[in-house]
Amino acid sequence: MSDLLQTIRGLSKKTESKIVMVVLDGVGGLPLEPNGETELATAKTPNLDALAATSQLGQVELVGAGITPGSGPGHLSLFGYDPLHYVVGRGALSAVGIGVKLNKGDVAVRGNFATLGAGRVVEDRRAGRPSDEKNAEIVAQLKAAIPEIDGVPVEIYTESEHRFVVVFRAQGGEVLGANIGDVDPQAIGVPPLRAEAHDDASVKTAGLVNTFVDRAEAALKDDAQVNGVLFRGYSDVPHFPSFDDAYKLNAACIASYPMYKGLASLVGMDVLDVPGEEDALEGKVQVLREHWEKYDFFFFHVKKTDSTGEDGNFAAKVKKIELFDALLPDILALGPDVLCIVGDHSTPSKLSTHSWHPVPVLIRSDHGRKDLTARYTEEEAQRGSLGLRHGTDLMPLLMANALKLNKYGA
Amino acid sequence: MSDLLQTIRGLSKKTESKIVMVVLDGVGGLPLEPNGETELATAKTPNLDALAATSQLGQVELVGAGITPGSGPGHLSLFGYDPLHYVVGRGALSAVGIGVKLNKGDVAVRGNFATLGAGRVVEDRRAGRPSDEKNAEIVAQLKAAIPEIDGVPVEIYTESEHRFVVVFRAQGGEVLGANIGDVDPQAIGVPPLRAEAHDDASVKTAGLVNTFVDRAEAALKDDAQVNGVLFRGYSDVPHFPSFDDAYKLNAACIASYPMYKGLASLVGMDVLDVPGEEDALEGKVQVLREHWEKYDFFFFHVKKTDSTGEDGNFAAKVKKIELFDALLPDILALGPDVLCIVGDHSTPSKLSTHSWHPVPVLIRSDHGRKDLTARYTEEEAQRGSLGLRHGTDLMPLLMANALKLNKYGA
Repeated sequence: MSDLLQTIRGLSKKTESKIVMVVLDGVGGLPLEPNGETELATAKTPNLDALAATSQLGQVELVGAGITPGSGPGHLSLFGYDPLHYVVGRGALSAVGIGVKLNKGDVAVRGNFATLGAGRVVEDRRAGRPSDEKNAEIVAQLKAAIPEIDGVPVEIYTESEHRFVVVFRAQGGEVLGANIGDVDPQAIGVPPLRAEAHDDASVKTAGLVNTFVDRAEAALKDDAQVNGVLFRGYSDVPHFPSFDDAYKLNAACIASYPMYKGLASLVGMDVLDVPGEEDALEGKVQVLREHWEKYDFFFFHVKKTDSTGEDGNFAAKVKKIELFDALLPDILALGPDVLCIVGDHSTPSKLSTHSWHPVPVLIRSDHGRKDLTARYTEEEAQRGSLGLRHGTDLMPLLMANALKLNKYGA
Repeated sequence: MSDLLQTIRGLSKKTESKIVMVVLDGVGGLPLEPNGETELATAKTPNLDALAATSQLGQVELVGAGITPGSGPGHLSLFGYDPLHYVVGRGALSAVGIGVKLNKGDVAVRGNFATLGAGRVVEDRRAGRPSDEKNAEIVAQLKAAIPEIDGVPVEIYTESEHRFVVVFRAQGGEVLGANIGDVDPQAIGVPPLRAEAHDDASVKTAGLVNTFVDRAEAALKDDAQVNGVLFRGYSDVPHFPSFDDAYKLNAACIASYPMYKGLASLVGMDVLDVPGEEDALEGKVQVLREHWEKYDFFFFHVKKTDSTGEDGNFAAKVKKIELFDALLPDILALGPDVLCIVGDHSTPSKLSTHSWHPVPVLIRSDHGRKDLTARYTEEEAQRGSLGLRHGTDLMPLLMANALKLNKYGA
């Protein structure tokens, strides 16, 4: 356990107060022109504006200066787990997120369906983002084609859109290594990479991955759009101190997408079922309301602010921010003692990808100092009273605002 | 390697983008009167002002709060090497800077010529800043007088003005210790200190240093101005991860003074020859232009902003800032993807020495948020969007702005 988390663990106490952490995935943005407005500043957000007027604002850097967080490290940091210390592979996250239990020795791998063109070059790293139904069909086809490789059982799970998960099940006490290079070249116009083992324990696993790629391409060769697979994020089974242990919080996750559910599950949150399609914002608020009495911490995840940013669609990201704004009164009506609005990283539409820019954070509680910020935007957050902080400072601040931390020392 | 540098090393990638880091040595200042203007704020800098209008500003602390950086630690921090972790003596820096190769066991020492008065008290720690020619004459005199001490070969090198370097060459596998107290009292009106060994391995070296001081004073006794030597900064041979290894940058140093060239050389930069005398600003810009295609990182050093501050000459420091401002358009004309203006420490004319005050930093790239700072000054930097940061955050931010860092985690 890291020093800070260990300290907080020694100070945390159980109380009746309730904390809601809303993660607007990838919410931080950039202006399209120098000194222009970001997506947040462009959005019409009367409810967030009103909230900001009585809240504390600031900025968080989830991993470190200049470092662009992946979704896993970004969320771990928000949850108080220093992502340079607590490392979890995307494969393990995804597997846990869809309810797959990993056993010692197994390796879970995150895959993308891709479109390959002539000469096997990658034309689309997301195969045009197929529907979830199409994804399930392709997965069924692969399951039939690749039930095992060299005696190692292979499990294939549908995730969403272009994403799937493969679990290689170790047999007879064998431990499969997970220290393997990417198949995904993270570029188009070039062929997929061959997976390379980075240590002796991973040589067999790299062979399994490469054989999987070959047999998948053979099985999918008649599909013009979904005809290749790319892998990155191989992982064995991680271990984390739980939210209950570290914070004495009875925590619930309200999210629609597997990765975020998986991450919450890794830190010991109960993952609640959310009715509805895709982001299902209304369903999430309904679940929050129905479980309000049972938990004292809610991780409320909104995905589409990130997806629209990744698609480079400034206007769509603005719209998704406005959709969340419309729901905010329903969350406030429940009367959380501490409400936090934050992102796990920035995803500026201008860059069409995650970025290193700090994320605006808002904390509403009855225990704040005067903070004259008027809106939840990057610019306002820069002059907020919380300052610029590392992401792992957030949970201690929320716990403190909820009066859930004892004094340090006599 | 420190954790942060190790992390950045794992994320860095080679791209075509170019970064220019301009270090205005000692640029941070202080007002002469409470709430007055600093040297930067007093200077007329139309080009820096225009640049600031479309840049991000902030402040860096190179070592830590309240800690006044020497030039070595200040630059190491700017280059991303935590100066509390990567320690290099001034002697080693100077030796490397004038092209002297140090071997295992040798000790390099930085010296100042000084003026001693009656009772051996220090009257001028810089002997009136002698000309480089005078410096070379004195060094020749000392070389003749002190070729060796107790069988240890002594090499003496001219540096510039009042500065020189002594290398004690270890013989037959002996390792000379470098853990020795200063001879320089860093004050006037008192005699030089006797060098004291701080560990057993350095007892012999301390004796060599004290003998050198005695024999140098004997040799120089007829010179009214240059008649003493002061030492501080003893060092053996340091080892650093290279810029190429850590950042995948092909880096060049454009500097006139030996220490800065030495430091750049220690981290693996190519040190380019600069035509011209002293700061040779036009020569530096010419070298930058001529080597523009060959490198993707340029460390561009301006010295006189510090020298004038150390001389306590407010007006002269203002003038040196304005001289740089006049050259800025030539640098901008090359179209760097990322341009950074920063200092390695503050040198307020009011204090006539380095100080602990944070240094204003400016980053210009196409990937910045709105930042309504209008000038590159201490006051504007305080409200800049980059916040107040440790110096080692700078390189990751420059790398990120140049799109040279991969995402951390999936």
